[in-house]
Amino acid sequence: MRIARYSVEDEVGFGLIDTDQDSGEQFISRLKGHPLLGNVQLTGERAKLEDVRLLSPVLPSKVVCIGKNYADHIAEMKDVTGEATDEPVVFLKPSTAVTGPNEPIFYPAASQRVDYEGELAIVISRVCREVPRERAKDVIFGYTCANDVTARDLQKTDKQWTRAKGFDSFAPIGPWIETGLSLEEASDLRVTTTVDGETRQDGRTSQFIHDIPALISYVTSFMTLLPGDVLLTGTPAGVGPLDVGSQVTVAIEKIGALTNRVTTRD
Amino acid sequence: MRIARYSVEDEVGFGLIDTDQDSGEQFISRLKGHPLLGNVQLTGERAKLEDVRLLSPVLPSKVVCIGKNYADHIAEMKDVTGEATDEPVVFLKPSTAVTGPNEPIFYPAASQRVDYEGELAIVISRVCREVPRERAKDVIFGYTCANDVTARDLQKTDKQWTRAKGFDSFAPIGPWIETGLSLEEASDLRVTTTVDGETRQDGRTSQFIHDIPALISYVTSFMTLLPGDVLLTGTPAGVGPLDVGSQVTVAIEKIGALTNRVTTRD
Repeated sequence: MRIARYSVEDEVGFGLIDTDQDSGEQFISRLKGHPLLGNVQLTGERAKLEDVRLLSPVLPSKVVCIGKNYADHIAEMKDVTGEATDEPVVFLKPSTAVTGPNEPIFYPAASQRVDYEGELAIVISRVCREVPRERAKDVIFGYTCANDVTARDLQKTDKQWTRAKGFDSFAPIGPWIETGLSLEEASDLRVTTTVDGETRQDGRTSQFIHDIPALISYVTSFMTLLPGDVLLTGTPAGVGPLDVGSQVTVAIEKIGALTNRVTTRD
Repeated sequence: MRIARYSVEDEVGFGLIDTDQDSGEQFISRLKGHPLLGNVQLTGERAKLEDVRLLSPVLPSKVVCIGKNYADHIAEMKDVTGEATDEPVVFLKPSTAVTGPNEPIFYPAASQRVDYEGELAIVISRVCREVPRERAKDVIFGYTCANDVTARDLQKTDKQWTRAKGFDSFAPIGPWIETGLSLEEASDLRVTTTVDGETRQDGRTSQFIHDIPALISYVTSFMTLLPGDVLLTGTPAGVGPLDVGSQVTVAIEKIGALTNRVTTRD
């Protein structure tokens, strides 16, 4: 199932995406209730997907991010983030950084170098702490695409990454949550990032240094995760700059594509 | 005014603290509504403060923390966190780390060195972004005490501070929000941390390298703050270890005292 959050005529809610087998056209059917609480029902309202405004499919209490999870990316970033580490590097983006598909990424005046980082995002289904590897799949609600937008120059000078990765709009997430993937499927998906039609990142989640169960187990060893929390899994090689006006798309096989355009505030 | 969040007979809500002039006894009067939304009324229910369980006075969407804001503390921590920086060091604690007065701080098995860090905490009153210095006071709801509990060994090895400062229970906040202090008063308060009755930290907020308006202006230059968000302002010199069983109190003049005991989970 693909679950989106969307607004149509100022009403915000969740919906199920479906595709007409003949025409290929996509529709969204309104849900009553909250998918993470498991009490949803179809209302009967249905609209063409192109007629609604998709929002970030979750409102996470926290966005937990993993750094240095692809060997090729560690190599290309050595001067900024150093050598590989035995344990995953964990950092947080504030929930105010979250934005939805087709929403602007605001280029901050404080930075001269803003990079895309395409990533698989895991959406957590339940309150969980100290989850062992073998139970990791039980706390996954689904998967979506994310862009861990980063002010690379500030990341280098600030040392702590909070500002460089925490600007409003620096966490585009979407377009929807795919709940139908097994852990095995999610562990071998192609992740690409395209800027103005040109492919810049092309990796597979099978290249993770720390796999999905390892990430969930590690993060929950020190932090309780809540339903709707989002775990970003790290970015493959090929990171690079965005310009004002750039259109960036993170596409993940079997999930979908998340597109945003870079702009300035004024 | 002193506003607390508390539970009594399983009912959670906000209350106003008052002190009987004759006996010195403290009481709490139940409020209807949410103080941050400005629609509160007294319900007429009143209890002795000692008969209720105080909770963290806010449920912040984010806890934004400042590092290296006292010169003496920078000097004592040079081997872990390096030299002074021109701009404040900013990091986040997850909201799941927040705990209330008299609640346990859980000593994690992953660390052999857990430190207290007593700090003044600012509670934000409204949605705000790009707040200029001179308007900083307009976004402050009040002040409280906080303990930026830190696994010092993991802070050193992890480089990013998220794990070291993000364990569940590593952000005690309370005991209540003092809303009656002017910015001038808040800018010269004594902050002490006491472990098992022995004073370990003794600083004044007048020693801040970056003052309160500078902190609010800087943080909101890249991150929208929401009502109830909490800004921790950095810790004075004298940080040191806690042991299982230690009782730690962060006391701030004109605000109150926040006490927690260190324990293990099992």
